Amino acid sequence: MLFQVDMVVNIPDSLPKEQADEIKAREKLYSQKLQHEGKWRHIWRVAGKYENISIFDVKDNTELHEILTGLPLYPYMTMTIRPLCRHPSSIRDNDK
Amino acid sequence: MLFQVDMVVNIPDSLPKEQADEIKAREKLYSQKLQHEGKWRHIWRVAGKYENISIFDVKDNTELHEILTGLPLYPYMTMTIRPLCRHPSSIRDNDK
Amino acid sequence: MLFQVDMVVNIPDSLPKEQADEIKAREKLYSQKLQHEGKWRHIWRVAGKYENISIFDVKDNTELHEILTGLPLYPYMTMTIRPLCRHPSSIRDNDK
Amino acid sequence: MLFQVDMVVNIPDSLPKEQADEIKAREKLYSQKLQHEGKWRHIWRVAGKYENISIFDVKDNTELHEILTGLPLYPYMTMTIRPLCRHPSSIRDNDK
Amino acid sequence: MLFQVDMVVNIPDSLPKEQADEIKAREKLYSQKLQHEGKWRHIWRVAGKYENISIFDVKDNTELHEILTGLPLYPYMTMTIRPLCRHPSSIRDNDK
Amino acid sequence: MLFQVDMVVNIPDSLPKEQADEIKAREKLYSQKLQHEGKWRHIWRVAGKYENISIFDVKDNTELHEILTGLPLYPYMTMTIRPLCRHPSSIRDNDK
Amino acid sequence: MLFQVDMVVNIPDSLPKEQADEIKAREKLYSQKLQHEGKWRHIWRVAGKYENISIFDVKDNTELHEILTGLPLYPYMTMTIRPLCRHPSSIRDNDK
Amino acid sequence: MLFQVDMVVNIPDSLPKEQADEIKAREKLYSQKLQHEGKWRHIWRVAGKYENISIFDVKDNTELHEILTGLPLYPYMTMTIRPLCRHPSSIRDNDK
Amino acid sequence: MLFQVDMVVNIPDSLPKEQADEIKAREKLYSQKLQHEGKWRHIWRVAGKYENISIFDVKDNTELHEILTGLPLYPYMTMTIRPLCRHPSSIRDNDK
Amino acid sequence: MLFQVDMVVNIPDSLPKEQADEIKAREKLYSQKLQHEGKWRHIWRVAGKYENISIFDVKDNTELHEILTGLPLYPYMTMTIRPLCRHPSSIRDNDK
Repeated sequence: MLFQVDMVVNIPDSLPKEQADEIKAREKLYSQKLQHEGKWRHIWRVAGKYENISIFDVKDNTELHEILTGLPLYPYMTMTIRPLCRHPSSIRDNDK
Repeated sequence: MLFQVDMVVNIPDSLPKEQADEIKAREKLYSQKLQHEGKWRHIWRVAGKYENISIFDVKDNTELHEILTGLPLYPYMTMTIRPLCRHPSSIRDNDK
Repeated sequence: MLFQVDMVVNIPDSLPKEQADEIKAREKLYSQKLQHEGKWRHIWRVAGKYENISIFDVKDNTELHEILTGLPLYPYMTMTIRPLCRHPSSIRDNDK
Repeated sequence: MLFQVDMVVNIPDSLPKEQADEIKAREKLYSQKLQHEGKWRHIWRVAGKYENISIFDVKDNTELHEILTGLPLYPYMTMTIRPLCRHPSSIRDNDK
Repeated sequence: MLFQVDMVVNIPDSLPKEQADEIKAREKLYSQKLQHEGKWRHIWRVAGKYENISIFDVKDNTELHEILTGLPLYPYMTMTIRPLCRHPSSIRDNDK
Repeated sequence: MLFQVDMVVNIPDSLPKEQADEIKAREKLYSQKLQHEGKWRHIWRVAGKYENISIFDVKDNTELHEILTGLPLYPYMTMTIRPLCRHPSSIRDNDK
Repeated sequence: MLFQVDMVVNIPDSLPKEQADEIKAREKLYSQKLQHEGKWRHIWRVAGKYENISIFDVKDNTELHEILTGLPLYPYMTMTIRPLCRHPSSIRDNDK
Repeated sequence: MLFQVDMVVNIPDSLPKEQADEIKAREKLYSQKLQHEGKWRHIWRVAGKYENISIFDVKDNTELHEILTGLPLYPYMTMTIRPLCRHPSSIRDNDK
Repeated sequence: MLFQVDMVVNIPDSLPKEQADEIKAREKLYSQKLQHEGKWRHIWRVAGKYENISIFDVKDNTELHEILTGLPLYPYMTMTIRPLCRHPSSIRDNDK
Repeated sequence: MLFQVDMVVNIPDSLPKEQADEIKAREKLYSQKLQHEGKWRHIWRVAGKYENISIFDVKDNTELHEILTGLPLYPYMTMTIRPLCRHPSSIRDNDK
């Protein structure tokens, strides 16, 4: 089951740079592990922004909640979440 | 070069049903042709809405403009367009 | 899997009253059938408004989409949809 | 008498973690006590958010005010409150 | 139990003037009857606008809903409704 | 001459509690003095909020400005001000 | 007593041109009469818009209401009204 | 050439009172000098707000920019700027 | 003196196609004449939209007003206008 | 390929003045280098604001992203980005 999630990152000035870098490194590992598992289908950078647009494939709302709230950068993100379903014009079998 | 486009469709009551159906049929053909050519990468339905979220892969802004304004349903759509680029955490080679 | 849906109804003046009444009668039947099946868990009227707040229990986004777009009043509704999950403080076993 | 309340929680970074945890523990007890008394009818987590959607059953606006302002997390919450009433299509006797 | 209701009136050009006048006359009678009964406590015109701000004293949300949806001008109104309670600084015994 | 004023109070965490309490005590005295003088006609608490809705009866805009900016809590308030006048349907002689 | 009023004019296509011209001619007379009386202090066109910004000098909210609702173009205007008072830095005696 | 400028002042708590008072004193001198020169045509206080509405008469956009960014309170202001021109109904020769 | 103007075009369905085409042809001539005169410095299409972003070089607000309200498509446009001035980092002598 | 970028600068009070000045000096050099290379086509100051409107000419979204995120003032900017293409009425050959 697919969801589009838009994540805007806003790291406060008060967070020390080393701590921010450590969180970002964990974020990257976390994201890539979920991408390898097929749960984080796509991730794109919005040009000119510290913001990404992602597609998740999860079994239900609870799994989506656990994945998102587990993000190392979660406390610094503002999220917009939209449930998706297959489009009748789609020709891609797995874009359901 | 990738763009995310969100299309909200709003067909007025005054458009006769046969005419609307004919436009929708042309829209589907138009969309699928561009999907087969690889220019319309993804299309998903937003659950509960007459709205889709799409990813386009075009060579420049002008090609995007021509594709979008050529949509049979274009006069009845409200669009939000966002330029995308590769995310440094992405593991998918073609999500550039 | 639960979703909260807020539905604002706006029937245009141009729709003849008998036709509106017939649609509303079908809407009621459709809603009550889904309530009996357990898929439309709750429906409340927002005081002073032609608007309801509902809780749906569906197996996935696609089923939600089919239920909502099948509503007889769907063409006259503006919807806000939010995916829900169990709250860690909830004491009700079935509010998952 | 029913009210829907949407609560968005935003705990500032400046609040020490132990203090935040202690407030959250009191919040949970407070919520569950009111749920057992039947005044806090439902509570759901909004997927991906530190936010809940709740249904309260109170005898009047004053009782609602006292319950909400008594929440241990109240100073860190942004609330949206909507008065509800029975929907004519509802089949649940107690969803009044 | 008190509610503040803000009513913005927007009568479409397409409604014949006689019909509009007849509805406004019924609106005035309806409002004054409820004022005499003590249920419509206050009504003020917002200066320069076809809009009023009113205070209702009802026994519950359902009575408020019935009063508001019974307004002859209801189909042409946009309403904002806010539940009120006694302010701790108030010196007026009946502004509860 | 009447004005409706909506006051949302937002006291920052950085203000020491004793100082906040002292300001609130002065606010209450200030409000009740103006209520006794008939200039602050009504004050209601918005249910669930640290916010009030008030009706002022002043001789002109300048008097309104002086009363509002003189509020001890003024630096912590966001205000919405609307000029009112008598409603043609009102039956209360002094709601002018 | 001064008020700033911003008036955005939006004349619908369905109004015949002669009728619109006749209303605009009456609007101009109405405005100039009030300017000569000193009640409509200033009127400026917002560059590039069918919109004006005006300053009114009236004895109370009721007079403002009567002047504004008496405008021939009133049914086609959206208004924003702000009560003004003398600025402590002003050097103009009559900008009170 | 006229511009309307709306200035909302928001001085942070962290600015020491003496420093704020000194800035306000310079602001007043600056404003009155420009009023005497005829460049700052009008300034009104918005009732109940720390906000003014002003009319400037400058020779071009650059002069407007220099005047506004030269305001001692500029770092604490949020501005809305609108270019004005003579209204065809105006009877005041210098309201051009 | 420079202004940025954003023009969103929205031609209603009710306008006959030949009439719309005739207006657009006049619009093009009007625009190109002003471009040749140097008053309409730049015009770009916003990708995917019936909208343009333009830079005008005019002698004052009044000339801007006359140019914009003289556009054949003016009745179908929504405009956003921003006064510009030379940027201190600009290296282009005529971008003043 | 052209993009319009609107940049609003908001430097926090907590940044020491020398540090802010050093960043602004680097920003100017960075901007002028890109202007000389032809990638930063235009930059204008919005009158009365710490904000600019710029036109970039880049080969793709990725180059735009790199240029913008490389701005020394980037952490203090809020950006709005719009893809542009040639307008059919444009007479300037290089405004493509």
